[in-house]
Parts: sequence; structure tokens; C-alpha cells
Amino acid sequence: MALKKKKIAIAGIGTVGKGLLKILEVNGNGSSDIEITAIASRKKINIPKKSLFKKTCIFSDAEEFLKYDNYDILVELIGGDNGVAKKIVFNALKKKKHVVTANKALISRYWKDLNKISNNVGVSLKFEAAVAGGIPIIKIIDEFLVSNNISRIYGILNGTSNYILTKMLTTNKKFSEILKDAQNLGYAESDPTFDIDGIDTAHKLSILCSLAFQTNCDLKNIKAEGIRNIDLSDLKYADSLGYKVKMVGISQLKGKEIKNYVYPCLVAKNNFIANVDDVYNGVVVESNFCKKSFFQGEGAGSLPTATSVISDIISIIKLNKTGSKHKKKSNFKMDTVENRFGSYYLRFTTEDKPGVISGIADEFKKNNISMKSMLQKESKNKNSKGATIVITTHDCNEKNMFLALAKINKMKFIKKKTIYYRIENFIS
Amino acid sequence: MALKKKKIAIAGIGTVGKGLLKILEVNGNGSSDIEITAIASRKKINIPKKSLFKKTCIFSDAEEFLKYDNYDILVELIGGDNGVAKKIVFNALKKKKHVVTANKALISRYWKDLNKISNNVGVSLKFEAAVAGGIPIIKIIDEFLVSNNISRIYGILNGTSNYILTKMLTTNKKFSEILKDAQNLGYAESDPTFDIDGIDTAHKLSILCSLAFQTNCDLKNIKAEGIRNIDLSDLKYADSLGYKVKMVGISQLKGKEIKNYVYPCLVAKNNFIANVDDVYNGVVVESNFCKKSFFQGEGAGSLPTATSVISDIISIIKLNKTGSKHKKKSNFKMDTVENRFGSYYLRFTTEDKPGVISGIADEFKKNNISMKSMLQKESKNKNSKGATIVITTHDCNEKNMFLALAKINKMKFIKKKTIYYRIENFIS
Repeated sequence: MALKKKKIAIAGIGTVGKGLLKILEVNGNGSSDIEITAIASRKKINIPKKSLFKKTCIFSDAEEFLKYDNYDILVELIGGDNGVAKKIVFNALKKKKHVVTANKALISRYWKDLNKISNNVGVSLKFEAAVAGGIPIIKIIDEFLVSNNISRIYGILNGTSNYILTKMLTTNKKFSEILKDAQNLGYAESDPTFDIDGIDTAHKLSILCSLAFQTNCDLKNIKAEGIRNIDLSDLKYADSLGYKVKMVGISQLKGKEIKNYVYPCLVAKNNFIANVDDVYNGVVVESNFCKKSFFQGEGAGSLPTATSVISDIISIIKLNKTGSKHKKKSNFKMDTVENRFGSYYLRFTTEDKPGVISGIADEFKKNNISMKSMLQKESKNKNSKGATIVITTHDCNEKNMFLALAKINKMKFIKKKTIYYRIENFIS
Repeated sequence: MALKKKKIAIAGIGTVGKGLLKILEVNGNGSSDIEITAIASRKKINIPKKSLFKKTCIFSDAEEFLKYDNYDILVELIGGDNGVAKKIVFNALKKKKHVVTANKALISRYWKDLNKISNNVGVSLKFEAAVAGGIPIIKIIDEFLVSNNISRIYGILNGTSNYILTKMLTTNKKFSEILKDAQNLGYAESDPTFDIDGIDTAHKLSILCSLAFQTNCDLKNIKAEGIRNIDLSDLKYADSLGYKVKMVGISQLKGKEIKNYVYPCLVAKNNFIANVDDVYNGVVVESNFCKKSFFQGEGAGSLPTATSVISDIISIIKLNKTGSKHKKKSNFKMDTVENRFGSYYLRFTTEDKPGVISGIADEFKKNNISMKSMLQKESKNKNSKGATIVITTHDCNEKNMFLALAKINKMKFIKKKTIYYRIENFIS
């Protein structure tokens, strides 16, 4: 059925806003039912040349934008828990507009009020982008685990501090050096206070806490400790003791009490989040029926965060539609494994005599297969005079591999059919 | 606003059906807007004594159930790609009922037809429970990554075979022994063919492929290899080479061609899925804006799968509602970190002389703190005559720890303020 297009107003074109415009330009939005009616930006911006921007009004003045109301959904990407972002969001809700925001500080501080207004006027308030950009953790708590009782939610919620901790250990450098590198690479702001002092983690944790336990978690209940004074030697001692030092947020329900912790701590290397490195975020949710669920993705960055924003917009639009949205996009050719190009693990069971390796190697050469590693073991059985040869290969064609194996398996020195497994590096 | 309750009919009370009844009994459903109007089950069942089951009709005969139509949403939990499950699902769609199903074989085989009918009649067809029970992978592809182009999706999709591969290596036992154990523990069926020969993985992969690439992936395009003939020695060689052997499904788009692979293969230990062990499933999605996202959860089992079923039901109901559903559930006391009970890492910088350890140990004793490990290092600086002592503790009260540290930091042999970090085991 034909629907009226939903009108979107975007306030703020910073890092996330630019990502949003880029995705809308490159990939579209997964929905043909939107148009961008307004963009508010203090700086000059380039509007993508796409039909959904055909009628876009540009506002450089916030007060002018506040008077505008030709939109259904406000997308607030200005940031900050006060000033113009707050004004624009409350103004939109009061006008019965849906709101999508990436503003963790605002949601964290005004959760109670925002939730109340949006419920009262009957509109959606969505903020997937406020926590762990590339992980749909809000959706997971809100929609997937809706029937479960959550007992604990914890994880690495700040990409900048995780990057610093990871790099200190792998490059053997001090905190201050890595912070500088991170700033040069754009992973840390020139004023890194929010990230490295745990404030950003506390904002996000308070949002997760409010949602997971359906309560109102005031930020002042969370005492944040950061990584500013962390010493490389402690990362190394921890490592030698079997731990990684990670900057975490933990929210745990025990009886009628919620414990919220934000600090760098030692985490055993076999825990899910111990292997979440670099700018990645990782979140573990513990619930009564799904036990432990773990989610890892890029924590911040323009594009993963903008992905969350679009997901929220589409969610709101879908609320007014029925019917499955799956449409066949394209006819792809379905390739089969015979055409695989990749590397292989091979275990040969052979006689232990001269000429075995060269026999195998010759057949490999004929089929354009090159060895990467080889290990040879004598048979445990003294009487058998056999050998086991394990070979891994560089990438080659599966067809060539099977031709070579068919030939090799017929050679006299082969005592058992050769075992093969494919090696997957998941790179290209 | 008051809404008419949505009427649910559940067909099939096996493993997942029992999980569904249990969750509805224990946790409710996250929505007060449903009632169960019918349950079809060949065996006798116990209906939970909850208000939403007050008017439930029980059908033991499938033909009778097919004539019934006092429901809005059919939940099909019978399974199998033919016979009664197929009949009931197609019948419901033709009657313009929404369908929620856990039936991977049916969805995999009849995806094209089911999708067509549900689109034509304008109802929802949802099947989160069909793939990776405890991971909302369908929601993630369909709703979160809706604006991204997916280039590859791969992972461990079968809990039974992952359990077997994990246990073979950790217990040093043969395939046949572990399979028997798994059957005794209920992790493997008495006929394990679908799980261990890769058929189950192929079903799930074909669904992921169809969704991720918005195409129609016919099962016959996937040649599955399983783990039936896997030898313990290969798991060990792989381990020594830096790999784990994992049973994977891979679906990858290259240009206009999709490659679908299902086989056990070697995966480098630093890959996300190499550490997905036991009955867990793990899925990696690679997309153009979110790069690599990784999701891990219980793959199967009654309760995680039923969690997916309820999530789908609520999604359908929400499509007909507006307004945020967040309601404050309870007033919890917010505890602060001062009341933490846990273990600690401490690094003391001391003079290198007798009495240091006993000084620390005495203060620990007074505050009920017990040591878990200790390592002492001489200072690198020969002239300083100092020592570094790293101690980890058993669980104790944070208040006691800080009392002890305040005292210890004032002792004469302490040369620098003691460094502390909390250790998080995420157990209790």
C-alpha cells in the first residue's frame, strides 16, 4: 500500500550527523518512506544529491529551527545534556514528534522526564545510538529479552579507553604516549576527560541500568573511576597473572538493590570481554532464561552510530505499517564449495621412507599448491614404520587440491586416505 | 490506551513449547495484551495457572485445529518441513493470521512461498527462533543493519556439534564417546544426523543468506559436510598450529555471486568464533558501515529459543501500538561501590628489608582480608634497595580493603602509594 512519507528533521551535523548523511547517500535507508524536510547545522554542509533531500530546508539558527514543525521524527545529533540539544528534544516531544537521539548525556540525565513526556503524548523516544554504537544493545534489552529478567549487564562501553589500554600493553608504551597517538588518530578528543575518567561509561551504564531493570537510574548514583593514572607495569603484572585490565561498567541487581560500578579492573582472560580489544565495545547480558549473551561491535565512530540512528528511524516507521517488508533484491548466482579458493590442513599417513615428501611436493607443484607449514611425526607403533605428516597450505583452488589429493592418495607410500580440513581466515 | 488483547494459538508443545509455557508462567510476557486462545498438542499437557490461559482451548487433533480460527497470531512449534507443520502455517497465512515459528526446516525450504503469501495478505511472518535461539540475529540483520550492505555472515550455528568438538579436545576423548555423553546429557538427539552431518547448519545458513542478501537461497545450493568422521588427533594438531576446529556456516557475497559453505574447518584462535565453545552459538556479521559485529549466546535449548518466540510475538503486537512502552517497574535501592564485596589486585612499592610482608599481612588479618597470590620483584634500580610486591586477594569488603590500605600506606617501608585494582570474575 502507498503510505505518506515520514518527514525527518535532523538537528546537528557533527561526527554522527556526517555518518548519517553518508549512509543515506551511499546505501539508502532500507525504506523508501522517508524524506528529510529539515537539517539544522551551525556550519555549512553539503547535502547529498538524493531524492530524499530534494525538499530539505537548512537552518543555521537554532531558534528558527525551534519554530519549525514540518516533521514527524526529530533526529537530535547535537549532544550535551543542556543547552540547545535539550531545548530541541523537549520542544519536539511537546509537539508530539517522535525523537531519535544519540545523546547519552541527555538521556542519562533526563531519562525520567523524557520517558514521562513521550509516554504522555504517545510518541516514541529512541536512543540506540547513545550506547555502544555498533551493538544494538537497546533493542536487545527492550525487544529480544523482553520476557527475561535481567540480573546483570556489564561490559566495555568506551572505545577510547579500551583502545588506550589495549595499545599500552601491545606496544609497551605509557598512558600519556598512547593517549597522544589516539588523539592524532582521532580516537580520542583533544579534551579526553569524558572518555578516560569514566564519565562516558557512567552515562551509558545509567541508561543500560534504567532499561535493564526498568527503573530510573540517576547518574549521581554512579561513582566513576577512570584510567588516567594507569601504569603500564600493572597491565603487565595482570597479564602474567592471567588477567586483562579493562575499563568496565557493571550494573547488577541483587534482591531489591542495584550495584553500579564504573572502573578499570582485572578480568580473567577467559571472560568474554577480556578479548574485546582496540576501539571495540563488548556487552554481556545475564538473564534468567538466556543465561549469558554477549555482543561485540565497534563502540563509537560515525558510521556504526549512524547505523543505530537509522535503525531507530525505521523502527518508528514500521510501527505504522503491517506486512513483511522483505522484498527480493536481486538474483544472485549461488556458488558452491567446489569453487572455493583458500588454504588447507592435510594429515598424511605414510610409510616412513625416502621419497614421501618429494612425492607429495611434486604433486602439489603440478597443481599450483604451495606449502605453508609442515610437521612430521614418527608413528607411535614401532612395528608399523609409519609416519604422520601434517601440512598446511597457502591459498589454492579447491579443485586443484582435490586433484592433487586424488593422485597422492593412490601413491604407494600412502597408508590411509589423507585427512583434509579447510582453514578459514575470514579475511578476504 | 486500552487495546483489544491479541489472541495467540500455539501449535506443538515439544521442547520449545514447554519453554514458552514456562516463561509465560514465570516471567509473564512483557506485555499484558495477549491471551492464549488455543494450544494444539498430541500429548497431554499442563496449562499454567495464569490469567492469560483462562480461556485456552486444547486440541489434540491437528485437523480440528486447522478449522479453528479464533486467533490473531499462530505460534508454530511442531517442526519439520512437511506434514502438519507446513499445513498449519500455510493455512494460518491464508486466513490472514500472523505467524511466529521456530521451524528452520520449513522456513529454509519454503522461504520463497511463505514470504510471498505473507506479503500478499499483509501479515507478519517471524522466525527469530529458527536460527541461533539465544541470539537475536534475525532482528539484527533485519532491523539493526537495515541501512548497511552485508558482505559476509558466518558462524557456529549448531550447538550440538560445537559441544562435541569442544569436549573432544578438552577431555581427550573420541568423537563416538563424546556423542554418547552428549546424548545422555540431552545435548544430542538419539538420531543426531541433522546436527552432526551439517544439515541443521545448512538450514540455518540458508535462512541467514536469504535475509542478509535479500535473496532466495535454496537449500540445494548448500553442500553440507559434517563432523561424523572427525579424529581427535586433528583437533590436537590444529591446536598446536594455533587453530581451533569449528563446525561453521559461511555465506559470502562477492560481486553478484554468493558462496555458501558448511563444513568443519580450522579457525585461527584469535578469530571471534574460535572461543565460542560448548553449546554456544556465535555469529559474525560483516557490513560496510559497522564492519565486524559479533554475537554469542546459547544456540538452542528450550528457554533461549522460547525467548525468541516471545520477542517475535511482542514485535507483532507493537506494530499496532504507538507510544513508548517503558513503565517504571520498581523502586530499587541504588548501591554504591563503597559496599563492594570482591577481590583485589595490589601493587606495593616498598623498601627491601625484613618485616615488609609481615607488616602487610598483619594489617590484612585485622581487616579480614586473605591473600590469594603474591609475587615479589627486586627493584631494577640497584641503588634504591626497593621491592615491588604484587598481591591478589580473595573476596573481601571494599571498606575493609581501604581501611587496610590507608594503614599500610602510612607504614615506614612503603615508598609509594599502593596501586589497587578490583578483580572482576563476573561469577556471583
